[in-house]
Amino acid sequence: MQRITVLGAGSWGTAFAKVLADAGRDVVLWARRPEIAESIVRDRANPGYLPGVTLPSGLTATTDAEAALADAQAVVLAVPSQTLRANLGAWRDLLPVDATLVSLAKGVELGTLRRMSEVVREVAGVDEAHVAVVSGPNLAMEIATEQPTATVIACTDHDRAVELQHACSTGYFRPYTNTDVIGCELGGACKNVIALACGMAAGLGFGDNTMASIITRGLAETARLGAALGADPLTFAGLAGLGDLVATCASPLSRNRSFGERLGRGDTLAQAQEAAHGQVAEGVKSCSSIRELAARSGVDVPIADGVHRVCHEGMDARVMAAALLGRERKAEWS
Amino acid sequence: MQRITVLGAGSWGTAFAKVLADAGRDVVLWARRPEIAESIVRDRANPGYLPGVTLPSGLTATTDAEAALADAQAVVLAVPSQTLRANLGAWRDLLPVDATLVSLAKGVELGTLRRMSEVVREVAGVDEAHVAVVSGPNLAMEIATEQPTATVIACTDHDRAVELQHACSTGYFRPYTNTDVIGCELGGACKNVIALACGMAAGLGFGDNTMASIITRGLAETARLGAALGADPLTFAGLAGLGDLVATCASPLSRNRSFGERLGRGDTLAQAQEAAHGQVAEGVKSCSSIRELAARSGVDVPIADGVHRVCHEGMDARVMAAALLGRERKAEWS
Repeated sequence: MQRITVLGAGSWGTAFAKVLADAGRDVVLWARRPEIAESIVRDRANPGYLPGVTLPSGLTATTDAEAALADAQAVVLAVPSQTLRANLGAWRDLLPVDATLVSLAKGVELGTLRRMSEVVREVAGVDEAHVAVVSGPNLAMEIATEQPTATVIACTDHDRAVELQHACSTGYFRPYTNTDVIGCELGGACKNVIALACGMAAGLGFGDNTMASIITRGLAETARLGAALGADPLTFAGLAGLGDLVATCASPLSRNRSFGERLGRGDTLAQAQEAAHGQVAEGVKSCSSIRELAARSGVDVPIADGVHRVCHEGMDARVMAAALLGRERKAEWS
Repeated sequence: MQRITVLGAGSWGTAFAKVLADAGRDVVLWARRPEIAESIVRDRANPGYLPGVTLPSGLTATTDAEAALADAQAVVLAVPSQTLRANLGAWRDLLPVDATLVSLAKGVELGTLRRMSEVVREVAGVDEAHVAVVSGPNLAMEIATEQPTATVIACTDHDRAVELQHACSTGYFRPYTNTDVIGCELGGACKNVIALACGMAAGLGFGDNTMASIITRGLAETARLGAALGADPLTFAGLAGLGDLVATCASPLSRNRSFGERLGRGDTLAQAQEAAHGQVAEGVKSCSSIRELAARSGVDVPIADGVHRVCHEGMDARVMAAALLGRERKAEWS
């Protein structure tokens, strides 16, 4: 795996392209906007997404998807989860046969309730052994500044996961392999919802005990849902479960957490969205699809449910918090 | 369980006594120092440990252990782990027969490598069904200010755990029961060591990805050790494992984390100790006993080992971090 293409030049796409180039791969980064591709080629920089970061020379950029994809041995999909289907549809006929398709997107598709790797398989018409996902405690800006990070490369085909692991190992980026794609993807999707809940608690003025309790019980409900959907419960105790969740909930850089804080302080969804420059946090959408997935599987997800009520049914965050605390006292695992 | 005695008026002992009183129990708090007992009785305050907190009227205090223990149905031990044996030895003949003995201490005894509940059983001469432990994301100051918190009450006797659960349930304190005492105690002991490692990483200038990776891999090594010692692996994914770990590692209030930060910035153990008003963080001692326990069980604990090397063998924290990152790439669970 020497020639790798990354589709999407946002912060995580650009940071992962840098990791691959630092690991010695030949990397082409596709950007939608010409000014971003130009800036990467000319200045070795993507200042709108990774301010202050110098990109390595093994990394080039283009807006021409056909040129970007020619001869690629692996294709990394770094576009937002709710637009992955449309984007990949446009690239479908350009994908080299047998290339490993790697999803960086985290979410569950609204309406279809598909995980991202399922969307990739459907749209690209490939089997599951060709699709890998990357998930873990991966705040893009920290990776771009080469702070030590561990991550998970998941693929049902272990050998393919190992190939990709070698392709992206550097002194600061330490990938572990895993064959549980379902668990890794669910961990990534649910963490945004739990980060929203942590943000709400912080906005209500609560401290680190509360945050730790929400993280723990949130991971427990994620693991219950995962088990019902065929994931390995152990995955949720790992980097793509706990690791990603802790990084997202603890970081002041997390969009979901900040968004939740505004809701906790009493902002409406519209006000929080305005403060986030018009963007809605990913968890605001995921809470609805996760709640639906859980209902279909008969699994109780009180935190995702509470977040949904605050985001989409106008419930006050303080009322939601009181309802969560007022649940019947019981055994930790039952 | 109406009459409860708490032995030890430090921050956690006082905060837990407040929880019990708020839950409607009759609570006597024993303090070693007369000025603390006086301040609690006279001013409803323990300003040295819980500044600004008003204690409830159902809580009284004394320095007379015999009076404190008379008729107690439960006795809560809130003294430091390395002094528990000596303290309990002095109280041994005063303990009412059949009282539930509750340990709040977290650690593994140096030399004997005993968990705290094992020390209690040995010194008090009671069977395991009489000993419970409380563990979870329990930063004392946050509980004293009534921020919502979940915790675990562990006892091999489920009915006794439920009794204690009812005795300490309040609107802000939400206890779950668990029968895995070994897992809950190990989680509490190991988290201090992992918090030291997180502090070191912060002191070296690393961010939230690194912290989340250390927390995740630290919990994995704790769970491996726990499994070897008879704990239920699920416990480590719960409040006494993950929950306590996240609260301790994320909080700027954590002594172990702050101590580690100084070591990460290049302080010697002696310098860090001086900055901490002469106190050594609990994890500095636990890392040695945990490493010994692990060696005896044939379990690999690279983080506890690294912390031990920095604390007791003069290794530079930067060298330790590089060694951890340079380990062989592998599967996440193997």
